[in-house]
Amino acid sequence: MDHFHWLHRGTAEIFPNQNNSNNSEENLVNLLKNSDRPLRVKLGIDPTGSDIHLGHSIPFRKLRAFQDAGHTAVVIIGDFTAQIGDPTGKSEVRKQLNSKQVEKNVESYLEQLSSVLDFSTPGRLEIRYNSEWFNKLDFHKVQELLSTMTVSQMLAKEGFSERYKKENPIFLHEFLYPLMQGYDSVVVNADVELGGTDQKFNIAVGRDLQRHFGQKPQFGLLLPILTGTDGTQKMSKSLGNYIGLKEDALSMYSKIEKIPDTLVQNYFELLTNLDLNELPKDSRELQKLLATEITSHYHGEEKALSAKKTAENLVKNRNSLLTDTITEFNLSNVVFPAKLFYILSASKLCVSSGEGRRQIQGGSVRLEGEKILDVNLVFDNPEQLDNKVLQVGKTKFTRLVSR
Amino acid sequence: MDHFHWLHRGTAEIFPNQNNSNNSEENLVNLLKNSDRPLRVKLGIDPTGSDIHLGHSIPFRKLRAFQDAGHTAVVIIGDFTAQIGDPTGKSEVRKQLNSKQVEKNVESYLEQLSSVLDFSTPGRLEIRYNSEWFNKLDFHKVQELLSTMTVSQMLAKEGFSERYKKENPIFLHEFLYPLMQGYDSVVVNADVELGGTDQKFNIAVGRDLQRHFGQKPQFGLLLPILTGTDGTQKMSKSLGNYIGLKEDALSMYSKIEKIPDTLVQNYFELLTNLDLNELPKDSRELQKLLATEITSHYHGEEKALSAKKTAENLVKNRNSLLTDTITEFNLSNVVFPAKLFYILSASKLCVSSGEGRRQIQGGSVRLEGEKILDVNLVFDNPEQLDNKVLQVGKTKFTRLVSR
Repeated sequence: MDHFHWLHRGTAEIFPNQNNSNNSEENLVNLLKNSDRPLRVKLGIDPTGSDIHLGHSIPFRKLRAFQDAGHTAVVIIGDFTAQIGDPTGKSEVRKQLNSKQVEKNVESYLEQLSSVLDFSTPGRLEIRYNSEWFNKLDFHKVQELLSTMTVSQMLAKEGFSERYKKENPIFLHEFLYPLMQGYDSVVVNADVELGGTDQKFNIAVGRDLQRHFGQKPQFGLLLPILTGTDGTQKMSKSLGNYIGLKEDALSMYSKIEKIPDTLVQNYFELLTNLDLNELPKDSRELQKLLATEITSHYHGEEKALSAKKTAENLVKNRNSLLTDTITEFNLSNVVFPAKLFYILSASKLCVSSGEGRRQIQGGSVRLEGEKILDVNLVFDNPEQLDNKVLQVGKTKFTRLVSR
Repeated sequence: MDHFHWLHRGTAEIFPNQNNSNNSEENLVNLLKNSDRPLRVKLGIDPTGSDIHLGHSIPFRKLRAFQDAGHTAVVIIGDFTAQIGDPTGKSEVRKQLNSKQVEKNVESYLEQLSSVLDFSTPGRLEIRYNSEWFNKLDFHKVQELLSTMTVSQMLAKEGFSERYKKENPIFLHEFLYPLMQGYDSVVVNADVELGGTDQKFNIAVGRDLQRHFGQKPQFGLLLPILTGTDGTQKMSKSLGNYIGLKEDALSMYSKIEKIPDTLVQNYFELLTNLDLNELPKDSRELQKLLATEITSHYHGEEKALSAKKTAENLVKNRNSLLTDTITEFNLSNVVFPAKLFYILSASKLCVSSGEGRRQIQGGSVRLEGEKILDVNLVFDNPEQLDNKVLQVGKTKFTRLVSR
């Protein structure tokens, strides 16, 4: 097998990529072969959110592959931009965060990545906050950054070009963001930058700025945008078609197991290290393997196998109970945060909160097939329970819905 | 006569200008009438050069009119921008200066304005260097400034729009200049900004920024761009059609006296305070009056009248000698700086440098009709002498040419 198989697996594009040239300046594989030092491989994080899903994990998985090949992952936390927010105050996307919120998000973010990145091998990980350099960037330097690009170059950028054609306003400060991302590459002296295919322009700006500041320009390595569980749109929290790294094993397992057939090969390639030539033929087996493999990665093999078993039982129970006709309980009248025993009573699965407590203590209560033993279990919001099956004993079921 | 005649004389436009409204917010005359404090009237200087010509003097003359009406002239020295130069290094127009050069230029600039502005009445003049605020402008603030405008608004600006249409590159940092000029208005809390008609956009940006920062937006008062001595193009040093404030009285007088008839009324309106209804009818008299009036302003009446006399004599002498056939001496072989006595010898007006010295000492040497008595007079470059008549006694003449 190709020694650099890990580099190309699931990779959408590497640029520049002069295959005809033996010049390592223009070919990443040559650089990897010839470099006498670990390469510095950059990946940026936007800390305005903290929930990561499988889509986000893809460039981090590639970053890990670089780490495993002996290179240095340089993770840039975009805390400066997060703390500015949108200066126009018009965008809800760019909400302004204070440093504590950013810190909390970053902590959560990194925790979720603990089973993706190599945090322990010395010299394999560098975490940098870009406020380090942007807080002290003076006006001269800002002018210098801006002077490296023309308006036409910026307006050609995907995203800007459509908005400009449609005469939607583009505010001037938006031009700073690609330059800031590019300047990050200069500061950390990146050899390679990873990103989704939507990052090509920004990574190319980094190359220009590195050239401007006398550095050898980085390579860009682009990774596909993952399609969500709906099989059509890109995975996104706001579209509800996502699988979060923080989800419990059963939820993660069940969601992966149910993705459309058309996505299965793609998920194997992007989200596992399994040999694609040695996968089972049977499509049910394939989906279960995919779900077990990914769930194992985030929750360990034991929990993954337990989730698999629970899911299988749940399906059996559901089938035996004609789950399509299962009653639903609408949570809209429940005040959250709400204790589970209260929900058992409100939904009439138990005659009172007291019975609810006792059934939990007795081990008869299951949520999505998973036994609940914590009498004081609390849910913060109805979305956490949406579409989940709550069960008491072997005969009483209801599907919770939050709308 | 209208009490605010001084405001409107030679003014191309005042904006906003809601004549129908009695709201002083929208009418500068009302504001002038009703304000209980001196207005702050801003005018910017680009200190990359130091030679001012009559065209530059026009907004300063208007600024003086505001001073005389009791208001405060706020002169902004754009030293920050001058010290940046062009970050692309591509423009020769925006050359980078060090702080000493800027200081020297400013000193010279202000000296040339000494007979235009009122430097002595307390409270009538404030001189501010914009490096004061731009040296400490942080990246957050730069983003805030940029966020107040859209790309389309900026590209609609005269200058940018043509370049964009022609696909000539516009570098992103160029968008900063109007915002910087606008931010100057915020910092000095300007009530009025003066400028040439080419400054309308920048002054309007100042209004927007003042609004953004919670200030009452300034009025813009635009003044015409002066046509140069060629009668067609705007007065400009590089076009050679200018009359500099530093020129000696004779040179200033002669140039003004010779401007095309079509400019005379315009020059009277913009460059003198004479009543336009009481000017002489005879066109020769009119031109002499214009030249005497303006020259008096910069050199005092005595020198102006002397220049007038010399010029008249020179014309007489020329006519009597058929000056059209006067010999020329080309200065291209003379090494500059050069002493006048050497030039007298080199041009064969004198047989030797020694004779040249003696003729100067004896009072026989004239340059453009003006007697030269300084034996050690030195010229730095041939342009200073270009097209000037050098004369020894009453019979020896030569026209010096520098090309």
